[in-house]
Amino acid sequence: AFPDAPTARAPADGGTHLSVQNVDMCQQINELQHNTAAFDNPNLVVRRGQEFLVRVTFNRPLAQNDDFQLEFLIGENPSASRGSLVAVTFNSRLGGPWSGRLVESQGVTMTLGITPTPNAIVGRFRMYVAVVAGTGMRRTKRDGTTDLYVLFNAWCKDDAVFLPNEAERNEYVLNDHGVMYQGSFEAVTTRDWVYGQFERGILDTCIYILDASRMPINDRGNIIKTVRMGSAMINAQDDNGVCVGNWSDNYSMGRPPTSWTGSVQILLQYAKTGLPVGYAQCWVFAGVLNTFLRTLGIPARPVTNFVSAHDNNGNLKTDLICLPDGLPDYNNTKDCIWNYHCWNEVFIRRDDLPPGLGGWQVVDATPQETSDGYYRCGPASVIGIKEGLICHPYDPGFVFSEVNSDVVFYQRDRYGILTPYWVDKDYIGKAVYTKSLGSNSPNNITQNYKYLPEDKRTMARSEEYGVERNHSELPETTLSIIINVNLGQEVNLQVDFNNHSDVPKTIRANLACSVIFYTGVRASHLKYHNFTITVPANQSKRSNEYMPYLGTQLCLHFIVTGQTEDESVTAIKVLELQIPTLTVTLSGLCRVQQEMFANVTFTNPFNFALKACRLSMEGAGVMSEKTLDETWTKK
Amino acid sequence: AFPDAPTARAPADGGTHLSVQNVDMCQQINELQHNTAAFDNPNLVVRRGQEFLVRVTFNRPLAQNDDFQLEFLIGENPSASRGSLVAVTFNSRLGGPWSGRLVESQGVTMTLGITPTPNAIVGRFRMYVAVVAGTGMRRTKRDGTTDLYVLFNAWCKDDAVFLPNEAERNEYVLNDHGVMYQGSFEAVTTRDWVYGQFERGILDTCIYILDASRMPINDRGNIIKTVRMGSAMINAQDDNGVCVGNWSDNYSMGRPPTSWTGSVQILLQYAKTGLPVGYAQCWVFAGVLNTFLRTLGIPARPVTNFVSAHDNNGNLKTDLICLPDGLPDYNNTKDCIWNYHCWNEVFIRRDDLPPGLGGWQVVDATPQETSDGYYRCGPASVIGIKEGLICHPYDPGFVFSEVNSDVVFYQRDRYGILTPYWVDKDYIGKAVYTKSLGSNSPNNITQNYKYLPEDKRTMARSEEYGVERNHSELPETTLSIIINVNLGQEVNLQVDFNNHSDVPKTIRANLACSVIFYTGVRASHLKYHNFTITVPANQSKRSNEYMPYLGTQLCLHFIVTGQTEDESVTAIKVLELQIPTLTVTLSGLCRVQQEMFANVTFTNPFNFALKACRLSMEGAGVMSEKTLDETWTKK
Repeated sequence: AFPDAPTARAPADGGTHLSVQNVDMCQQINELQHNTAAFDNPNLVVRRGQEFLVRVTFNRPLAQNDDFQLEFLIGENPSASRGSLVAVTFNSRLGGPWSGRLVESQGVTMTLGITPTPNAIVGRFRMYVAVVAGTGMRRTKRDGTTDLYVLFNAWCKDDAVFLPNEAERNEYVLNDHGVMYQGSFEAVTTRDWVYGQFERGILDTCIYILDASRMPINDRGNIIKTVRMGSAMINAQDDNGVCVGNWSDNYSMGRPPTSWTGSVQILLQYAKTGLPVGYAQCWVFAGVLNTFLRTLGIPARPVTNFVSAHDNNGNLKTDLICLPDGLPDYNNTKDCIWNYHCWNEVFIRRDDLPPGLGGWQVVDATPQETSDGYYRCGPASVIGIKEGLICHPYDPGFVFSEVNSDVVFYQRDRYGILTPYWVDKDYIGKAVYTKSLGSNSPNNITQNYKYLPEDKRTMARSEEYGVERNHSELPETTLSIIINVNLGQEVNLQVDFNNHSDVPKTIRANLACSVIFYTGVRASHLKYHNFTITVPANQSKRSNEYMPYLGTQLCLHFIVTGQTEDESVTAIKVLELQIPTLTVTLSGLCRVQQEMFANVTFTNPFNFALKACRLSMEGAGVMSEKTLDETWTKK
Repeated sequence: AFPDAPTARAPADGGTHLSVQNVDMCQQINELQHNTAAFDNPNLVVRRGQEFLVRVTFNRPLAQNDDFQLEFLIGENPSASRGSLVAVTFNSRLGGPWSGRLVESQGVTMTLGITPTPNAIVGRFRMYVAVVAGTGMRRTKRDGTTDLYVLFNAWCKDDAVFLPNEAERNEYVLNDHGVMYQGSFEAVTTRDWVYGQFERGILDTCIYILDASRMPINDRGNIIKTVRMGSAMINAQDDNGVCVGNWSDNYSMGRPPTSWTGSVQILLQYAKTGLPVGYAQCWVFAGVLNTFLRTLGIPARPVTNFVSAHDNNGNLKTDLICLPDGLPDYNNTKDCIWNYHCWNEVFIRRDDLPPGLGGWQVVDATPQETSDGYYRCGPASVIGIKEGLICHPYDPGFVFSEVNSDVVFYQRDRYGILTPYWVDKDYIGKAVYTKSLGSNSPNNITQNYKYLPEDKRTMARSEEYGVERNHSELPETTLSIIINVNLGQEVNLQVDFNNHSDVPKTIRANLACSVIFYTGVRASHLKYHNFTITVPANQSKRSNEYMPYLGTQLCLHFIVTGQTEDESVTAIKVLELQIPTLTVTLSGLCRVQQEMFANVTFTNPFNFALKACRLSMEGAGVMSEKTLDETWTKK
């Protein structure tokens, strides 16, 4: 029960007063016009800045002095000056700010056209018909079936989410399936994801998320605040948001991040329990945020950045620290490098920024660092990141270092003092991929984020706004190291030591191999090895190392450091092992309401049987998630 | 007990190893050089970016192979890459980032000069002397007396808080007394305030506030983050900060905001109890924040904006709504206008913004609206506000509307629809005052915030970045209203109705008089009155109203609306009644350690005796707050 009616005074009534017999929200015709027909929702869903129709039937034809208006209310304290109470009129009497017109009048039935402003509040409105009666108004009773949802509108030129291209709107607003890219730049793998923004309950869940965030109702027409709130609420940190991150390899209190096939189960579980859902890693956060955004009508897509830096201390460079003997100093290295990281882009106008920074904006729900007090990130202009304009809200500096930062290697001496000895300017941000329009193949959008390496303008500009680059005089190096890995029955590691100087060099080499998660966090050590190798002047020498091939390893991380009397060099190699591909074939005819058979096969690459396997399938609009537990043995 | 020592291994010792006998922090000489002698603190206080001396006495003169370093640690997990663990060396061996030099060596005593970087972390560091011994280090034991405080440094060119002018540094960093301006633009009153930044316990309290905020240690060298955190923590909202705001006129659970004479009691009570202190209004928030800032070495001053808008809904204009009969619609008006509002300015470089936006920045601790999730405001560039560049962090838009917004009057019809009928472009931001250097007289700095009214460039620019101005075609007006108030035994209200048209006008006039708080919030109604007045063509007519003069009224708010068939005009007048002035005269000689007599007099302007009066006195460095409860009768 909301304190809705502004000031309803019952007038003295002299007989046949005008009253409302029926209200028809014209759901079918409106939803076709508003590209919302796919929503599995009993109430009308429209997009703002575009006319929708309501058909009102009165008890008698309107007379000369009859007057009425439609009233739309949202939230607990609707207020005209805040846009949460809107009165729409259909004659010369001023209403507003939504415009109204009489489309058709047939006897006692009037078809009314209502156009919400292109900056209207987004959410579920309650609607009343108010009839002027004497000095007051007589309103229809609260009726949940005439409630309607107003969404952002990528089809409307004046909406801040306007997207001119129809194919892009079909992909970034309407497509409820997608793929995310994982693995490594050299060996990209694809993960299907069901966004399911039209599934029953998802729209209500997205509004519930905004309610749970306590975001003021009158901010909910503001695209920038809405997107930023989504980034904060999709992770559970500090606000009891949707997904709990877990990179520990122990998922016993929830489901492993790899087991989800889409956002629908996660969102519905959150809405049902009101509790954060376990567990997510970056692609899960990106998938759920993408659903949240597309549901509300915001053009959105997930992207993957390969070799993504995580700048832990806000200095916009990635600091890796080695011990005196050349091995990585895991205790003192706080920054880290993720094999890949997924975030989202939204396509919006940035009225709050100088011209030229609109378009795609980065927004990231994975809880990496706090932004102004909460775990959230963005929206940050992609153009701004490319141009090094990291002075504008929100968080472009953090994204900048994810794709652009220099990796600085330090040697830590036995007194605790750090000396930089090597800067790698090309290691981070190998490529940024997103799904192509209308197909599952990747679209390389790296050039949206940065100029080609030979073009130095991004880094130069960014230094004006606080990027600390290391310009120390580094010792000149005459050595280089190249790592190659061959996988066979064993792992064969070939390390080439190159001596570019005119004198022979004796190199003390250190080799460390670890199993790491995709976040760069070490799971276990496989091998430490040190040896001495002498390389003649202007020659190369290869060292071969063999290690057993452990099938459960997902990521192998090799680091080799070579030291002579007067110089140090380091090389890193990360190898992501391929996951076997699932093949799905359908047999029999596909008919509505008839059972269908799907045959799922894959090849177990290991030399042992896989136990307690779980297969999850989902198809938006076709079937909700189904899982199957079974034990396979290796074929 | 902190896990301090990086890696202390006790070496096998062959007899007379080098060890430390004594460490002298040279407090007197250092504090004179660092302008910190006024701090009543047993530990050394220095400012960053400037050398300080430490004298170390060893057990024997240093031999060829002896080596040592000083180590400075702060926080729970000191880390070299984050600047919270600093090793300073005094020979060719690389240390850093703080530089060290040997100033003097006399036998077994060495005088060492240490220069923290100009971006060093601010707070209380622990210091150790570490002697190289074998393959490890031998450190001095933890000794609280060698702890030292590092502050921001307005004297250091490379510090982001550098202030070039010595007189300004003396005022904005070192002055522990000040005044704040209140009342109204026409009748400015002065309130003394004791900042007391050097009083015992205040420096520790300011660091405690940062600890309570859970601000990461390595952010505490960043002036922008520190200032923003201060703005969030000085109010108690959402983070259990220092002061509880109360504008209710019921202060029974704490002390009335007007009873405080300075920040010291408030801060010490907060540190002692760990609980927010009641109660504060804007000048109290500004006073306590000013203490926090000056304590940490940040140049800061409170300023007062007369006729300050509080834009409640983020549309950057001030919307006032009238009922159909012309009276103010208090229920639907959410924005409000404060008679005056106090905030702070800090003088800092803005490395995060494009060039030209450094210098004075607004920061406001009064909890008015949330900024990105917390009650806080700023730092916002004053130059940016003047130029309408409201696109940069943090919160320039909110401050912009405090000094610049148009007041838009709406009439709300009986159907709830709002129609703008009057825009006042010059009502808000009448003047901004701050204390002059070295005197208590006000310095008018309005021109820092905005161009003269005839210069339209600020508003034009600000519209590019989202300021919504009302450009509706307003009805042309031929009427104007001017309100004059004379105070005698009664309040005499003179309302002049001017008719600029060539026809006589019959005006339905509405007059409302309320008692308001300085925030514009209504305390009680005094009078509603409506009448009709006919004004001949091109003439004026005066209406006189008399009201009893109630001595306890602090602020009277008059609003007069005149309506004819085709137009509406409104005039507002706020009258702030003067508070009697206290006069203090000293009698007898003022000698150290001798009692002094102060004679405090004031004239009770009321025709009744004042009961339960309370007199508070305070003098930084002289006496802490003393109060006296007594009953006076009118003289």
